[in-house]
Amino acid sequence: MANEKDTHACTLDKIISLCKRRGFVYQASEIYGGQAGAWDYGPLGVDFKRNIQNAWWKYMTQLHDDVVGLDSAIFQHHTTWKASGHVDHFSDPMVDCLECNARHRADKLIEDWCASHDFKTDKPVDTMTHEEMKSFIDANINCPTCGSTNRKYTAVREFNLMFKTYQGPIADESHLIYLRPETCQGIFTDFKSIVQSNRMKIPFGVAQVGKSFRNEIIFKNFIFRTCEFEQMEMEYFCKPGTEDETFARWREDRWNFYLKYGIAEKNLKWHHHDKLAHYAKDAYDITYNFPIGFEEVEGIHSRTDFDLSQHMEYSKKDMNYIDQEDGNKRYIPYVVETSAGLNRNFLMFLCEAYEEQNVGTDGKDDYRTVLHLDPRLAPITVAVLPLMKKDGLAEKAKEIQHLLKEDFVTDYDVSGTVGKRYRRQDEVGTPYCVTVDYDTINEKNEDGSVNPNYNTVTVRFRDSMEQERVSLDDLVAFIQKAIKNYKPVQR
Amino acid sequence: MANEKDTHACTLDKIISLCKRRGFVYQASEIYGGQAGAWDYGPLGVDFKRNIQNAWWKYMTQLHDDVVGLDSAIFQHHTTWKASGHVDHFSDPMVDCLECNARHRADKLIEDWCASHDFKTDKPVDTMTHEEMKSFIDANINCPTCGSTNRKYTAVREFNLMFKTYQGPIADESHLIYLRPETCQGIFTDFKSIVQSNRMKIPFGVAQVGKSFRNEIIFKNFIFRTCEFEQMEMEYFCKPGTEDETFARWREDRWNFYLKYGIAEKNLKWHHHDKLAHYAKDAYDITYNFPIGFEEVEGIHSRTDFDLSQHMEYSKKDMNYIDQEDGNKRYIPYVVETSAGLNRNFLMFLCEAYEEQNVGTDGKDDYRTVLHLDPRLAPITVAVLPLMKKDGLAEKAKEIQHLLKEDFVTDYDVSGTVGKRYRRQDEVGTPYCVTVDYDTINEKNEDGSVNPNYNTVTVRFRDSMEQERVSLDDLVAFIQKAIKNYKPVQR
Repeated sequence: MANEKDTHACTLDKIISLCKRRGFVYQASEIYGGQAGAWDYGPLGVDFKRNIQNAWWKYMTQLHDDVVGLDSAIFQHHTTWKASGHVDHFSDPMVDCLECNARHRADKLIEDWCASHDFKTDKPVDTMTHEEMKSFIDANINCPTCGSTNRKYTAVREFNLMFKTYQGPIADESHLIYLRPETCQGIFTDFKSIVQSNRMKIPFGVAQVGKSFRNEIIFKNFIFRTCEFEQMEMEYFCKPGTEDETFARWREDRWNFYLKYGIAEKNLKWHHHDKLAHYAKDAYDITYNFPIGFEEVEGIHSRTDFDLSQHMEYSKKDMNYIDQEDGNKRYIPYVVETSAGLNRNFLMFLCEAYEEQNVGTDGKDDYRTVLHLDPRLAPITVAVLPLMKKDGLAEKAKEIQHLLKEDFVTDYDVSGTVGKRYRRQDEVGTPYCVTVDYDTINEKNEDGSVNPNYNTVTVRFRDSMEQERVSLDDLVAFIQKAIKNYKPVQR
Repeated sequence: MANEKDTHACTLDKIISLCKRRGFVYQASEIYGGQAGAWDYGPLGVDFKRNIQNAWWKYMTQLHDDVVGLDSAIFQHHTTWKASGHVDHFSDPMVDCLECNARHRADKLIEDWCASHDFKTDKPVDTMTHEEMKSFIDANINCPTCGSTNRKYTAVREFNLMFKTYQGPIADESHLIYLRPETCQGIFTDFKSIVQSNRMKIPFGVAQVGKSFRNEIIFKNFIFRTCEFEQMEMEYFCKPGTEDETFARWREDRWNFYLKYGIAEKNLKWHHHDKLAHYAKDAYDITYNFPIGFEEVEGIHSRTDFDLSQHMEYSKKDMNYIDQEDGNKRYIPYVVETSAGLNRNFLMFLCEAYEEQNVGTDGKDDYRTVLHLDPRLAPITVAVLPLMKKDGLAEKAKEIQHLLKEDFVTDYDVSGTVGKRYRRQDEVGTPYCVTVDYDTINEKNEDGSVNPNYNTVTVRFRDSMEQERVSLDDLVAFIQKAIKNYKPVQR
């Protein structure tokens, strides 16, 4: 029945609730009423996020011979952002109510008003001039904060989205620092250093993971849009004229990354940008079918030689590459960028993995919540569960946990029935549970005969819920092999 | 001879030069003249830094059953820093020259003047009041910036070391955000959430790695003291009365971490704090014998219940823990903190590993620069080197690199003699070089006899420079075993 299906579908609210309840994500500074647009990743969330980040890092740098890594500072010279265009163009139009001093995003004000009044503007809001926005607001929109019908507003002005601070005790322009709004500019400013120190030959890429900051006025959808977020970016430098094939190759490559880690292809969709930045040659987003609809998780952009040329102009440093394999030809390389959001990846992998699965038998409903995470991403890899606390089972289980923990992230749980404990592990995506019972510790059966299951444990698989008896001597290798051979469930 | 020894000793300048030359660390925004106190980690630096961080993370969370992880936001509610004491007390005394407007750190001004005039103040500078500092400066010190002998200065005032920014378009107090000056406060504010979501039982610890920011006026010693830096912190919550044994245990535990990853015990020294913060019960630093002398790499602090109590007072939320194993007793846990600097760890492991080693034979000097890094920390684990580019050796070497790269970070190098390539790998600490030669690809010798070395490669060890012939079928397992059994060189 459609109704029943809906009740057990994945929703953003269920994900948020699971995240809070099980220690994936908390609101930042919750005890102080919360910090808007900031989130803390709890004990399970931090390992899950690290696993996604490490998977991306390994895939991009370790498995690609032609991609190296970088970790540039959040604090870069402020001219960096002049050159990149962020100082002049990275802004939203804002308008203040003169009666209550509330500040609003002008374009959002108009869009929201149109949506609630079922009204269509003559031209798209994002093509309106500041004067056109101001006229429309003056003519139609009461301040949503104070409700005044006088409609007294300031002119529409641009508000830059970069956070500013000052280095040193004097707050003047020469000490101004912007918190970087993207990680990639550090790759461009270090381009020549990287070529030189690591003897890089075109084509090659530089990958970077790190925090970026944007002074967004509107947060939405949990960790989807926040002021502080983590990017996983790669800039691939190629010879002018080869950018189209490079672009096509990286589109395919990045798409495959998501398939490799268990995203079903039906839940991914390309979004082609019709409106391009003046320097951009082409741009696609990989979008994922979130409970809130298809939304971007990664952008792949053909950026020409714009960034390197800008830094060359502003720094007066030569950004040309000398191509020894092409008669020492000098050129500014073209760039293909892949830019993924780590926090959005986090949310995507959670949504993809989430299932409320009916595992009832004999026609009876019995729902379990399970995260079908790839074992390489799951925050806990193996949970060790003694059947009972008594009779030395707890001690034996602890011993087995110690045997495993050099190679795996482990958990130990002794409270409640084993069935309840399986469910708790299912809910956080633990792929393997190891159960320690009397067979594990009893060399002989009660009648004195040899116990063939002595020194073995039960390994229980999350997805199939099947169980297998495994010798303790083989346990590490058994789990390693299971991880390697893991196949995502088809749903 | 002492002289000769000095020439080949590790100095900070040599480390800085190696870091720049080989792509470990560059100055941030170098093309714009550099951003003071900010550094970018290049292709080798980023992997080396990640390896140290991952080693710490694994050691603290995966190997300790009683420690979980957290990743709290850099942006926390500003009251967090009021409660922690940073708003009121995290500051340096500053004084301005009224003639040139230069701003100076008052205490440093006095210390520097005393040092250069071989003068001793009546009382230690760090115990002087603002008025005493002002009097001393007025009486003795000309402005070091403009050189004026008029000594016209403002009063000495406190300058807070937290970077400030504003969230949203309005820069008022209610939108104020501090960039966190330490990661640990997020652990305290999330304490109750962690206990609840992960059913934690006292005693337990919460570990966190992340960026912190301090508006230092004086940077020094390369990456040792910077405005933007990474901390690896752990707060261990225990029952009041057990803090001394907990403190002793963590001191030992953290000391052993450094031994485990190859720091010689003779290069570590405890520094006991005589002057404690009013809430602190005890504090020790682990200091390392840098080329600039023994300096702190990690602090271990017994912090009582200060932080949780402060947050309880400011947030009005109950921070008591209910101890079910002690008759539901309610108490604010005591805290032992271990706080290490990742960037300082980076510098320490580099300095420790650095050797200019005389490997000359027959009485002739021949120095190689080698980093004796633990293979788990080295940025490259295996370099694959074809003897020649021709005759299919390069292709075979690439094939072998592909065989290895799922399990190891690999490099491939074909330029120059094999001897030169070994030296290049030594200089960046690559523990294993795999050399591909004609034996690797020739099934038969020239005379038609079977080649016993067919399908084998040479594995060359960085520290001993010894070589061993290994079958390609065993290569992955051979290197895995070598990493596991690695013993640091004794020097």
